[in-house]
Amino acid sequence: MAIAAIEKLIIRLSRLPGVGRKTAQRYAYFILGMDREETVELANSLLEAADKVHPCPVCGMYTDLELCELCSDPRRTDAVICVVSEPKDVAAMEKTREFMGKYHVLFGSLSPMDGIGPSEIRINELVDRCKGGEIKELILATDPDAKGDVTAAYIAKLIKPLGITITRIARGIPIGGNLEYIDEITLQKALEGRREM
Amino acid sequence: MAIAAIEKLIIRLSRLPGVGRKTAQRYAYFILGMDREETVELANSLLEAADKVHPCPVCGMYTDLELCELCSDPRRTDAVICVVSEPKDVAAMEKTREFMGKYHVLFGSLSPMDGIGPSEIRINELVDRCKGGEIKELILATDPDAKGDVTAAYIAKLIKPLGITITRIARGIPIGGNLEYIDEITLQKALEGRREM
Repeated sequence: MAIAAIEKLIIRLSRLPGVGRKTAQRYAYFILGMDREETVELANSLLEAADKVHPCPVCGMYTDLELCELCSDPRRTDAVICVVSEPKDVAAMEKTREFMGKYHVLFGSLSPMDGIGPSEIRINELVDRCKGGEIKELILATDPDAKGDVTAAYIAKLIKPLGITITRIARGIPIGGNLEYIDEITLQKALEGRREM
Repeated sequence: MAIAAIEKLIIRLSRLPGVGRKTAQRYAYFILGMDREETVELANSLLEAADKVHPCPVCGMYTDLELCELCSDPRRTDAVICVVSEPKDVAAMEKTREFMGKYHVLFGSLSPMDGIGPSEIRINELVDRCKGGEIKELILATDPDAKGDVTAAYIAKLIKPLGITITRIARGIPIGGNLEYIDEITLQKALEGRREM
């Protein structure tokens, strides 16, 4: 009963993050029910994204320009660089409308167990940028988990000798969070990071 | 900061069932990180499915043949037809390996509120099949919800004069279900449908 073209589509769709066979099957049957033009448009938007979008040569954020809009924005300071693991983290940061420096996307976190060392992510590019002399502060905004912490620690050790201030985004209780339900490590970090009111 | 090609991809992906903007964004960033060939393969599998797969002219199930494998299987009897709402329901039925008749996919359920009347789904085609004279039983396996029940009742009324036995799949407690947590309507149906042991 397996139809090769459907089966192939299900397999390809199930490679998307968090998509198991059941969900892929659901998507596939939905796609089969779409108008042909809609399917063509979806396929084209995939190809267009692959062809037009590439990482910015400076910060690594996805862009369809030679230099991304963030890097070429004159209102943004070159003195502060926010280091993140993934391009989507830049999008999350930008939503705060708070940060007016530049970014550096690592495209991953250090993970020796998975064979991801410093040369597998964009750490050399970061060091080169830091050697330019314009940067005063590096905000390490890698995820607050084991890999993110290791990556941040590694970068801090590497960059500190260049005389750049290194900061790490605060760990603490999220807004709307409830003390009772927060894990003890977060609570411990929130205590450590307490500020005078 | 919005990049047209990414935005377009996100919008197209968010049309998939159960996919909101956040999930579509996650898929889009994942796709941007894939190798170009992988993206091309995904796009091609979409187009291939749209081009090669079509509903079987008899039962409506998706197929890449002129007549689907189920309809052309000589081991399957023409005397019993199982009526379902969607092609994916055929796949679910087939997993039981229990049913050895043919299918009829309606491609929807009656829903006057949404403007879906008998001519919007494949009911005329079902009546034509039933007039062929070979069919002895029609198993109505539309979903056990309001729309599915209305659709089943409508079909039963329409086909009964042709002298065909009409049955409806049993409603009851699912295997592994717990009396305590089952809703009262299901429990009521389970009582009504009780059988002598």
